[in-house]
Amino acid sequence: MKLKKLIAKLLLLGVGFVPSQLLAQTSLPLAENLINFNSSQGETLLVESKARQDYIPLSLQFETQENLAFCGVASIVMVLNALSIPAPKATEWVMYHRFTQDNVFDNPKTESIITKETVSRQGMTLQELAGLLKSYPVEVEVYHGNEVSLPEFRQRIINNLKQENNFVLVNYLRSTIGQERGGHISPIAAYNEQSDRFLILDVSRYKYPPVWVKAEDLWKATNTIDSVSKKTRGFVLINTELD
Amino acid sequence: MKLKKLIAKLLLLGVGFVPSQLLAQTSLPLAENLINFNSSQGETLLVESKARQDYIPLSLQFETQENLAFCGVASIVMVLNALSIPAPKATEWVMYHRFTQDNVFDNPKTESIITKETVSRQGMTLQELAGLLKSYPVEVEVYHGNEVSLPEFRQRIINNLKQENNFVLVNYLRSTIGQERGGHISPIAAYNEQSDRFLILDVSRYKYPPVWVKAEDLWKATNTIDSVSKKTRGFVLINTELD
Ligand SMILES: [Ca+2]
Ligand SMILES: [Ca+2]
Ligand SMILES: [Ca+2]
Ligand SMILES: [Ca+2]
Repeated sequence: MKLKKLIAKLLLLGVGFVPSQLLAQTSLPLAENLINFNSSQGETLLVESKARQDYIPLSLQFETQENLAFCGVASIVMVLNALSIPAPKATEWVMYHRFTQDNVFDNPKTESIITKETVSRQGMTLQELAGLLKSYPVEVEVYHGNEVSLPEFRQRIINNLKQENNFVLVNYLRSTIGQERGGHISPIAAYNEQSDRFLILDVSRYKYPPVWVKAEDLWKATNTIDSVSKKTRGFVLINTELD
Repeated sequence: MKLKKLIAKLLLLGVGFVPSQLLAQTSLPLAENLINFNSSQGETLLVESKARQDYIPLSLQFETQENLAFCGVASIVMVLNALSIPAPKATEWVMYHRFTQDNVFDNPKTESIITKETVSRQGMTLQELAGLLKSYPVEVEVYHGNEVSLPEFRQRIINNLKQENNFVLVNYLRSTIGQERGGHISPIAAYNEQSDRFLILDVSRYKYPPVWVKAEDLWKATNTIDSVSKKTRGFVLINTELD
Protein backbone atom coordinates (compact mmCIF):
# COMPACT_ATOMS: atom_id res chain seq x y z
CA MET A 1 0.00 0.00 0.00
CA LYS A 2 2.69 2.48 1.08
CA LEU A 3 4.80 1.49 -1.92
CA LYS A 4 1.85 1.89 -4.29
CA LYS A 5 1.22 5.34 -2.82
CA LEU A 6 4.85 6.28 -3.33
CA ILE A 7 4.84 5.10 -6.95
CA ALA A 8 1.56 6.87 -7.60
CA LYS A 9 3.03 10.08 -6.15
CA LEU A 10 6.12 9.76 -8.31
CA LEU A 11 3.99 9.25 -11.41
CA LEU A 12 1.72 12.17 -10.52
CA LEU A 13 4.74 14.40 -10.08
CA GLY A 14 6.04 13.27 -13.44
CA VAL A 15 9.18 12.23 -11.66
CA GLY A 16 11.23 10.25 -14.14
CA PHE A 17 14.16 9.31 -11.97
CA VAL A 18 13.11 5.76 -11.15
CA PRO A 19 15.02 3.84 -13.81
CA SER A 20 12.84 1.34 -15.60
CA GLN A 21 14.73 -1.63 -14.22
CA LEU A 22 13.75 -0.66 -10.68
CA LEU A 23 10.61 -2.47 -9.64
CA ALA A 24 8.69 -2.93 -6.44
CA GLN A 25 10.57 -5.20 -4.08
CA THR A 26 9.06 -8.59 -4.14
CA SER A 27 7.08 -9.55 -1.14
CA LEU A 28 4.50 -12.04 -2.25
CA PRO A 29 1.04 -11.55 -0.71
CA LEU A 30 0.49 -13.42 2.55
CA ALA A 31 -2.32 -15.93 2.99
CA GLU A 32 -4.89 -15.02 5.68
CA ASN A 33 -3.71 -17.79 8.00
CA LEU A 34 -0.29 -16.09 8.33
CA ILE A 35 0.63 -12.97 10.34
CA ASN A 36 3.40 -10.74 9.03
CA PHE A 37 5.98 -10.28 11.78
CA ASN A 38 6.79 -6.84 10.37
CA SER A 39 3.44 -5.37 11.50
CA SER A 40 2.12 -4.07 14.81
CA GLN A 41 0.20 -7.32 15.37
CA GLY A 42 3.34 -9.32 14.57
CA GLU A 43 5.41 -7.27 16.99
CA THR A 44 2.80 -7.67 19.75
CA LEU A 45 2.96 -11.45 19.40
CA LEU A 46 6.70 -11.29 20.09
CA VAL A 47 6.32 -8.90 23.04
CA GLU A 48 3.76 -11.29 24.57
CA SER A 49 5.78 -14.42 23.79
CA LYS A 50 7.15 -16.42 26.73
CA ALA A 51 9.35 -18.57 24.47
CA ARG A 52 11.59 -16.12 22.65
CA GLN A 53 15.13 -16.78 23.95
CA ASP A 54 16.30 -17.53 20.42
CA TYR A 55 14.86 -14.46 18.74
CA ILE A 56 17.62 -11.91 19.40
CA PRO A 57 20.60 -14.26 18.83
CA LEU A 58 19.07 -15.49 15.54
CA SER A 59 17.96 -12.08 14.31
CA LEU A 60 21.49 -10.76 14.85
CA GLN A 61 22.72 -13.46 12.44
CA PHE A 62 19.81 -13.17 10.00
CA GLU A 63 20.87 -13.52 6.39
CA THR A 64 19.31 -14.10 2.99
CA GLN A 65 19.81 -17.42 1.21
CA GLU A 66 22.34 -16.71 -1.55
CA ASN A 67 20.45 -18.51 -4.29
CA LEU A 68 17.08 -20.20 -4.73
CA ALA A 69 18.36 -23.56 -3.40
CA PHE A 70 20.36 -22.36 -0.38
CA CYS A 71 17.64 -22.06 2.29
CA GLY A 72 19.26 -24.89 4.27
CA VAL A 73 22.74 -23.42 3.87
CA ALA A 74 21.67 -19.97 5.10
CA SER A 75 19.84 -21.60 8.05
CA ILE A 76 22.92 -23.64 9.03
CA VAL A 77 25.16 -20.56 8.82
CA MET A 78 22.79 -18.55 11.04
CA VAL A 79 22.80 -21.27 13.71
CA LEU A 80 26.57 -21.93 13.63
CA ASN A 81 27.24 -18.18 13.93
CA ALA A 82 24.63 -17.79 16.69
CA LEU A 83 26.32 -20.63 18.62
CA SER A 84 29.81 -19.08 18.06
CA ILE A 85 31.10 -22.37 16.66
CA PRO A 86 34.77 -22.04 15.58
CA ALA A 87 34.71 -20.88 11.96
CA PRO A 88 37.01 -20.72 8.94
CA LYS A 89 38.48 -17.44 7.79
CA ALA A 90 36.36 -15.59 5.28
CA THR A 91 38.61 -14.19 2.55
CA GLU A 92 36.39 -11.12 2.15
CA TRP A 93 37.12 -10.08 5.76
CA VAL A 94 40.86 -10.86 5.60
CA MET A 95 41.67 -11.95 9.17
CA TYR A 96 38.21 -12.48 10.62
CA HIS A 97 36.63 -15.88 11.25
CA ARG A 98 32.94 -16.31 10.60
CA PHE A 99 30.70 -18.75 8.70
CA THR A 100 29.41 -17.73 5.30
CA GLN A 101 27.25 -19.64 2.82
CA ASP A 102 30.47 -20.14 0.86
CA ASN A 103 33.06 -21.17 3.47
CA VAL A 104 30.71 -23.45 5.42
CA PHE A 105 31.50 -26.08 2.76
CA ASP A 106 35.29 -25.68 3.23
CA ASN A 107 35.50 -28.75 5.44
CA PRO A 108 36.17 -32.31 4.20
CA LYS A 109 33.50 -33.71 6.55
CA THR A 110 30.92 -31.29 5.19
CA GLU A 111 31.76 -32.07 1.57
CA SER A 112 31.41 -35.80 2.27
CA ILE A 113 27.74 -35.36 3.29
CA ILE A 114 26.65 -33.43 0.21
CA THR A 115 28.58 -31.07 -2.03
CA LYS A 116 27.89 -27.40 -2.54
CA GLU A 117 27.18 -28.12 -6.20
CA THR A 118 24.53 -30.74 -5.40
CA VAL A 119 22.85 -28.44 -2.86
CA SER A 120 22.85 -25.69 -5.51
CA ARG A 121 20.89 -27.98 -7.83
CA GLN A 122 18.43 -29.67 -5.46
CA GLY A 123 18.64 -28.14 -1.99
CA MET A 124 18.91 -30.61 0.87
CA THR A 125 16.82 -33.18 2.71
CA LEU A 126 16.21 -33.22 6.48
CA GLN A 127 18.86 -35.94 6.89
CA GLU A 128 21.38 -33.98 4.83
CA LEU A 129 20.61 -30.88 6.91
CA ALA A 130 21.37 -32.87 10.07
CA GLY A 131 24.49 -34.39 8.50
CA LEU A 132 25.89 -31.03 7.42
CA LEU A 133 25.33 -29.64 10.92
CA LYS A 134 27.04 -32.66 12.49
CA SER A 135 30.15 -32.02 10.38
CA TYR A 136 30.70 -29.23 12.93
CA PRO A 137 30.94 -29.68 16.73
CA VAL A 138 27.21 -29.56 17.52
CA GLU A 139 24.68 -32.13 18.69
CA VAL A 140 21.67 -32.61 16.43
CA GLU A 141 18.35 -34.33 17.13
CA VAL A 142 16.24 -35.12 14.06
CA TYR A 143 12.43 -35.45 14.09
CA HIS A 144 10.47 -36.41 11.00
CA GLY A 145 6.95 -34.99 10.70
CA ASN A 146 5.29 -38.42 10.65
CA GLU A 147 7.03 -39.44 13.88
CA VAL A 148 5.64 -36.75 16.20
CA SER A 149 2.12 -35.85 17.28
CA LEU A 150 1.07 -32.20 17.25
CA PRO A 151 1.49 -31.91 21.06
CA GLU A 152 4.98 -33.42 20.89
CA PHE A 153 5.94 -31.20 17.93
CA ARG A 154 4.74 -28.12 19.79
CA GLN A 155 6.31 -29.02 23.14
CA ARG A 156 9.76 -30.04 21.88
CA ILE A 157 10.11 -26.83 19.92
CA ILE A 158 8.77 -24.62 22.74
CA ASN A 159 11.24 -26.20 25.19
CA ASN A 160 14.09 -25.25 22.91
CA LEU A 161 12.78 -21.72 22.31
CA LYS A 162 12.76 -21.16 26.08
CA GLN A 163 16.44 -22.08 26.35
CA GLU A 164 19.52 -20.13 25.30
CA ASN A 165 22.35 -21.59 23.22
CA ASN A 166 20.32 -24.08 21.26
CA PHE A 167 18.21 -23.61 18.15
CA VAL A 168 15.48 -25.11 15.94
CA LEU A 169 15.48 -25.43 12.16
CA VAL A 170 12.28 -26.52 10.45
CA ASN A 171 11.93 -28.25 7.07
CA TYR A 172 8.40 -27.81 5.70
CA LEU A 173 6.30 -27.67 2.57
CA ARG A 174 5.45 -24.04 1.88
CA SER A 175 2.19 -24.77 0.07
CA THR A 176 0.72 -26.40 3.20
CA ILE A 177 0.96 -23.07 5.05
CA GLY A 178 -0.33 -21.08 2.07
CA GLN A 179 2.97 -19.94 0.55
CA GLU A 180 4.64 -20.40 -2.84
CA ARG A 181 5.45 -23.32 -2.80
CA GLY A 182 7.97 -26.17 -2.49
CA GLY A 183 10.09 -27.55 0.35
CA HIS A 184 11.81 -24.96 2.52
CA ILE A 185 14.12 -24.66 5.55
CA SER A 186 14.39 -21.77 8.03
CA PRO A 187 14.98 -21.12 11.75
CA ILE A 188 12.11 -20.86 14.25
CA ALA A 189 12.66 -17.87 16.55
CA ALA A 190 9.72 -17.76 18.98
CA TYR A 191 6.35 -19.18 20.06
CA ASN A 192 3.25 -17.23 21.11
CA GLU A 193 0.98 -19.14 23.45
CA GLN A 194 -2.31 -17.19 23.11
CA SER A 195 -2.32 -17.52 19.33
CA ASP A 196 -0.56 -20.94 19.26
CA ARG A 197 1.82 -19.69 16.58
CA PHE A 198 5.51 -20.09 15.79
CA LEU A 199 7.63 -17.31 14.29
CA ILE A 200 9.64 -18.41 11.23
CA LEU A 201 12.63 -16.20 10.32
CA ASP A 202 12.28 -16.96 6.61
CA VAL A 203 15.73 -16.85 4.95
CA SER A 204 14.26 -16.08 1.50
CA ARG A 205 14.04 -12.41 2.43
CA TYR A 206 13.63 -11.51 -1.27
CA LYS A 207 10.30 -13.33 -1.25
CA TYR A 208 8.54 -13.28 2.13
CA PRO A 209 8.80 -11.48 5.47
CA PRO A 210 9.07 -13.56 8.66
CA VAL A 211 5.62 -14.92 9.56
CA TRP A 212 3.74 -16.20 12.57
CA VAL A 213 2.20 -19.55 11.56
CA LYS A 214 -0.25 -21.73 13.49
CA ALA A 215 1.52 -24.66 15.20
CA GLU A 216 -0.91 -27.11 13.59
CA ASP A 217 -0.31 -25.74 10.09
CA LEU A 218 3.45 -25.93 10.51
CA TRP A 219 3.24 -29.45 11.92
CA LYS A 220 1.16 -30.56 8.93
CA ALA A 221 3.67 -28.90 6.60
CA THR A 222 6.44 -31.05 8.11
CA ASN A 223 4.39 -34.20 7.65
CA THR A 224 4.82 -34.08 3.87
CA ILE A 225 6.97 -36.24 1.62
CA ASP A 226 10.28 -34.89 0.28
CA SER A 227 10.60 -36.33 -3.26
CA VAL A 228 14.40 -36.70 -2.91
CA SER A 229 14.45 -38.65 0.38
CA LYS A 230 10.99 -40.26 0.02
CA LYS A 231 10.64 -39.47 3.72
CA THR A 232 8.70 -36.79 5.53
CA ARG A 233 10.19 -33.40 6.31
CA GLY A 234 10.47 -32.36 9.97
CA PHE A 235 12.70 -30.36 12.29
CA VAL A 236 16.09 -30.49 13.98
CA LEU A 237 17.21 -29.33 17.42
CA ILE A 238 20.80 -28.10 17.58
CA ASN A 239 22.91 -27.89 20.74
CA THR A 240 26.53 -27.14 21.57
CA GLU A 241 26.35 -29.38 24.63
CA LEU A 242 28.54 -32.46 24.61
CA ASP A 243 27.07 -34.86 27.15
CA MET B 1 33.75 -17.85 28.01
CA LYS B 2 31.25 -20.35 26.62
CA LEU B 3 33.40 -20.84 23.54
CA LYS B 4 36.51 -21.30 25.66
CA LYS B 5 34.65 -23.90 27.71
CA LEU B 6 33.62 -25.73 24.56
CA ILE B 7 37.14 -25.75 23.16
CA ALA B 8 38.55 -26.89 26.52
CA LYS B 9 36.00 -29.72 26.57
CA LEU B 10 36.92 -30.77 23.06
CA LEU B 11 40.61 -30.81 23.95
CA LEU B 12 39.97 -32.75 27.18
CA LEU B 13 37.99 -35.32 25.23
CA GLY B 14 40.83 -35.60 22.75
CA VAL B 15 38.34 -34.75 20.07
CA GLY B 16 40.28 -34.09 16.91
CA PHE B 17 37.50 -33.15 14.58
CA VAL B 18 37.92 -29.38 14.71
CA PRO B 19 40.05 -28.81 11.61
CA SER B 20 43.00 -26.56 12.32
CA GLN B 21 41.70 -23.79 10.09
CA LEU B 22 38.62 -23.41 12.28
CA LEU B 23 39.21 -20.74 14.88
CA ALA B 24 37.08 -18.92 17.41
CA GLN B 25 34.77 -16.51 15.68
CA THR B 26 36.09 -13.04 16.00
CA SER B 27 34.29 -10.81 18.36
CA LEU B 28 36.76 -8.29 19.63
CA PRO B 29 36.50 -7.53 23.36
CA LEU B 30 34.14 -4.68 24.23
CA ALA B 31 35.28 -1.62 26.14
CA GLU B 32 33.57 -1.08 29.51
CA ASN B 33 31.62 1.93 28.27
CA LEU B 34 29.72 -0.28 25.77
CA ILE B 35 26.91 -2.76 26.47
CA ASN B 36 26.64 -5.83 24.25
CA PHE B 37 23.10 -5.97 22.83
CA ASN B 38 23.36 -9.76 22.74
CA SER B 39 23.21 -10.07 26.56
CA SER B 40 20.41 -9.99 29.10
CA GLN B 41 21.27 -6.39 30.01
CA GLY B 42 21.31 -5.45 26.33
CA GLU B 43 17.93 -7.06 25.76
CA THR B 44 16.44 -5.29 28.81
CA LEU B 45 17.52 -1.93 27.42
CA LEU B 46 15.51 -2.67 24.27
CA VAL B 47 12.47 -3.92 26.18
CA GLU B 48 12.50 -0.67 28.23
CA SER B 49 13.14 1.56 25.22
CA LYS B 50 10.43 4.02 24.21
CA ALA B 51 12.15 4.86 20.90
CA ARG B 52 12.47 1.56 19.08
CA GLN B 53 10.15 1.79 16.05
CA ASP B 54 13.10 1.16 13.74
CA TYR B 55 14.49 -1.89 15.50
CA ILE B 56 12.36 -4.64 13.96
CA PRO B 57 12.31 -3.29 10.38
CA LEU B 58 16.10 -2.81 10.44
CA SER B 59 16.89 -6.10 12.14
CA LEU B 60 14.85 -7.92 9.47
CA GLN B 61 17.17 -6.43 6.86
CA PHE B 62 20.38 -6.81 8.89
CA GLU B 63 23.34 -7.81 6.78
CA THR B 64 27.12 -7.96 7.04
CA GLN B 65 29.26 -5.53 5.05
CA GLU B 66 30.71 -7.58 2.19
CA ASN B 67 34.27 -6.33 2.57
CA LEU B 68 36.24 -4.17 4.99
CA ALA B 69 35.28 -0.93 3.19
CA PHE B 70 31.56 -1.55 2.61
CA CYS B 71 30.05 -0.42 5.94
CA GLY B 72 28.27 2.45 4.18
CA VAL B 73 27.09 0.22 1.35
CA ALA B 74 25.61 -2.37 3.72
CA SER B 75 23.95 0.42 5.73
CA ILE B 76 22.38 1.95 2.60
CA VAL B 77 21.10 -1.45 1.44
CA MET B 78 19.51 -2.13 4.84
CA VAL B 79 17.67 1.20 4.77
CA LEU B 80 16.52 0.98 1.12
CA ASN B 81 15.20 -2.56 1.74
CA ALA B 82 13.54 -1.52 5.03
CA LEU B 83 11.80 1.34 3.18
CA SER B 84 10.73 -1.02 0.33
CA ILE B 85 12.24 1.34 -2.26
CA PRO B 86 11.83 -0.09 -5.80
CA ALA B 87 14.89 -2.25 -6.43
CA PRO B 88 16.78 -3.81 -9.33
CA LYS B 89 16.59 -7.51 -10.01
CA ALA B 90 19.22 -9.55 -8.22
CA THR B 91 20.60 -12.16 -10.63
CA GLU B 92 21.10 -14.65 -7.80
CA TRP B 93 17.34 -14.68 -7.12
CA VAL B 94 16.30 -14.81 -10.78
CA MET B 95 13.00 -12.89 -10.82
CA TYR B 96 13.06 -11.21 -7.42
CA HIS B 97 13.78 -7.53 -6.86
CA ARG B 98 15.79 -6.51 -3.83
CA PHE B 99 18.82 -4.36 -3.08
CA THR B 100 22.17 -6.07 -2.56
CA GLN B 101 25.61 -4.59 -1.90
CA ASP B 102 26.33 -5.40 -5.54
CA ASN B 103 23.26 -4.22 -7.45
CA VAL B 104 22.82 -0.99 -5.45
CA PHE B 105 25.51 0.46 -7.74
CA ASP B 106 23.64 -0.58 -10.93
CA ASN B 107 22.21 2.90 -11.42
CA PRO B 108 23.87 5.67 -13.45
CA LYS B 109 22.98 8.27 -10.78
CA THR B 110 24.64 6.17 -8.10
CA GLU B 111 27.79 5.60 -10.14
CA SER B 112 28.06 9.36 -10.76
CA ILE B 113 28.37 10.04 -7.00
CA ILE B 114 31.14 7.56 -6.31
CA THR B 115 31.98 4.26 -8.00
CA LYS B 116 31.90 0.85 -6.39
CA GLU B 117 35.64 0.56 -7.01
CA THR B 118 36.42 3.81 -5.19
CA VAL B 119 34.23 2.80 -2.22
CA SER B 120 36.03 -0.55 -2.15
CA ARG B 121 39.34 1.29 -1.73
CA GLN B 122 38.44 4.11 0.66
CA GLY B 123 34.89 3.69 1.94
CA MET B 124 32.72 6.79 1.76
CA THR B 125 32.36 10.19 3.42
CA LEU B 126 29.17 11.51 5.04
CA GLN B 127 28.42 13.61 1.92
CA GLU B 128 28.96 10.60 -0.36
CA LEU B 129 26.68 8.52 1.88
CA ALA B 130 23.97 11.16 1.49
CA GLY B 131 24.60 11.43 -2.26
CA LEU B 132 24.35 7.68 -2.81
CA LEU B 133 21.07 7.57 -0.87
CA LYS B 134 19.69 10.50 -2.91
CA SER B 135 20.35 8.59 -6.13
CA TYR B 136 17.24 6.65 -5.05
CA PRO B 137 13.80 8.18 -4.30
CA VAL B 138 14.40 9.11 -0.66
CA GLU B 139 14.80 12.39 1.20
CA VAL B 140 18.03 12.80 3.13
CA GLU B 141 18.95 15.32 5.81
CA VAL B 142 22.66 15.57 6.62
CA TYR B 143 24.09 16.71 9.98
CA HIS B 144 27.80 17.08 10.58
CA GLY B 145 29.05 16.41 14.12
CA ASN B 146 30.41 19.95 14.58
CA GLU B 147 27.07 21.53 13.62
CA VAL B 148 24.89 20.01 16.36
CA SER B 149 24.97 20.26 20.14
CA LEU B 150 24.59 17.08 22.19
CA PRO B 151 20.92 17.89 23.01
CA GLU B 152 20.14 18.49 19.32
CA PHE B 153 22.02 15.32 18.26
CA ARG B 154 20.10 13.28 20.83
CA GLN B 155 16.68 14.79 20.11
CA ARG B 156 16.80 14.64 16.30
CA ILE B 157 17.78 10.96 16.39
CA ILE B 158 15.23 10.06 19.09
CA ASN B 159 12.44 11.75 17.08
CA ASN B 160 13.30 9.56 14.11
CA LEU B 161 13.55 6.38 16.21
CA LYS B 162 10.01 7.02 17.49
CA GLN B 163 8.63 7.16 13.93
CA GLU B 164 8.07 4.37 11.42
CA ASN B 165 9.26 4.49 7.83
CA ASN B 166 12.31 6.64 8.34
CA PHE B 167 15.78 5.71 9.51
CA VAL B 168 19.08 7.02 10.89
CA LEU B 169 22.59 6.17 9.72
CA VAL B 170 25.53 7.35 11.79
CA ASN B 171 29.10 7.99 10.61
CA TYR B 172 31.51 7.93 13.56
CA LEU B 173 35.09 7.29 14.61
CA ARG B 174 35.24 3.90 16.29
CA SER B 175 38.23 4.72 18.51
CA THR B 176 36.25 7.51 20.25
CA ILE B 177 33.76 4.94 21.57
CA GLY B 178 36.50 2.44 22.50
CA GLN B 179 36.46 0.23 19.41
CA GLU B 180 39.03 -0.73 16.77
CA ARG B 181 39.34 1.81 15.17
CA GLY B 182 38.76 3.99 12.08
CA GLY B 183 35.71 5.69 10.56
CA HIS B 184 32.57 3.58 10.40
CA ILE B 185 28.92 3.73 9.28
CA SER B 186 25.95 1.73 10.64
CA PRO B 187 22.22 2.16 11.35
CA ILE B 188 20.94 3.28 14.76
CA ALA B 189 18.00 1.09 15.83
CA ALA B 190 16.81 2.36 19.24
CA TYR B 191 17.36 4.73 22.18
CA ASN B 192 17.10 3.90 25.88
CA GLU B 193 16.20 6.88 28.04
CA GLN B 194 17.27 5.67 31.51
CA SER B 195 20.79 4.83 30.34
CA ASP B 196 20.94 7.60 27.69
CA ARG B 197 22.25 5.11 25.14
CA PHE B 198 21.73 4.45 21.43
CA LEU B 199 21.73 0.96 19.91
CA ILE B 200 24.02 0.62 16.88
CA LEU B 201 23.32 -2.34 14.58
CA ASP B 202 26.97 -2.69 13.59
CA VAL B 203 27.22 -4.04 10.02
CA SER B 204 30.71 -5.49 10.60
CA ARG B 205 29.17 -8.57 12.18
CA TYR B 206 32.48 -10.45 11.77
CA LYS B 207 34.05 -8.03 14.25
CA TYR B 208 31.60 -6.67 16.82
CA PRO B 209 28.09 -7.38 18.09
CA PRO B 210 25.53 -4.54 18.14
CA VAL B 211 26.25 -2.26 21.11
CA TRP B 212 24.46 0.25 23.30
CA VAL B 213 26.64 3.37 23.38
CA LYS B 214 26.25 6.52 25.50
CA ALA B 215 24.69 9.38 23.49
CA GLU B 216 27.54 11.67 24.49
CA ASP B 217 30.22 9.22 23.36
CA LEU B 218 28.52 8.71 20.00
CA TRP B 219 28.06 12.44 19.54
CA LYS B 220 31.78 13.02 20.23
CA ALA B 221 32.62 10.22 17.77
CA THR B 222 30.72 12.08 15.04
CA ASN B 223 32.56 15.32 15.81
CA THR B 224 35.82 13.96 14.39
CA ILE B 225 37.54 14.82 11.11
CA ASP B 226 37.29 12.45 8.13
CA SER B 227 40.68 12.63 6.39
CA VAL B 228 39.10 12.27 2.94
CA SER B 229 36.50 15.07 3.23
CA LYS B 230 38.42 17.18 5.79
CA LYS B 231 35.00 17.66 7.40
CA THR B 232 33.49 16.15 10.51
CA ARG B 233 31.53 12.92 10.40
CA GLY B 234 27.86 13.00 11.52
CA PHE B 235 24.54 11.39 10.77
CA VAL B 236 21.81 11.28 8.12
CA LEU B 237 18.03 11.01 8.47
CA ILE B 238 16.33 9.13 5.61
CA ASN B 239 12.65 9.45 4.67
CA THR B 240 10.44 8.23 1.84
CA GLU B 241 8.21 11.26 2.18
CA LEU B 242 8.13 13.64 -0.74
CA ASP B 243 6.83 16.94 0.60
CA1 LIG C 1 16.87 -22.27 22.10
CA1 LIG D 1 22.47 -33.42 24.65
CA1 LIG E 1 12.38 5.95 12.29
CA1 LIG F 1 10.46 15.88 4.51
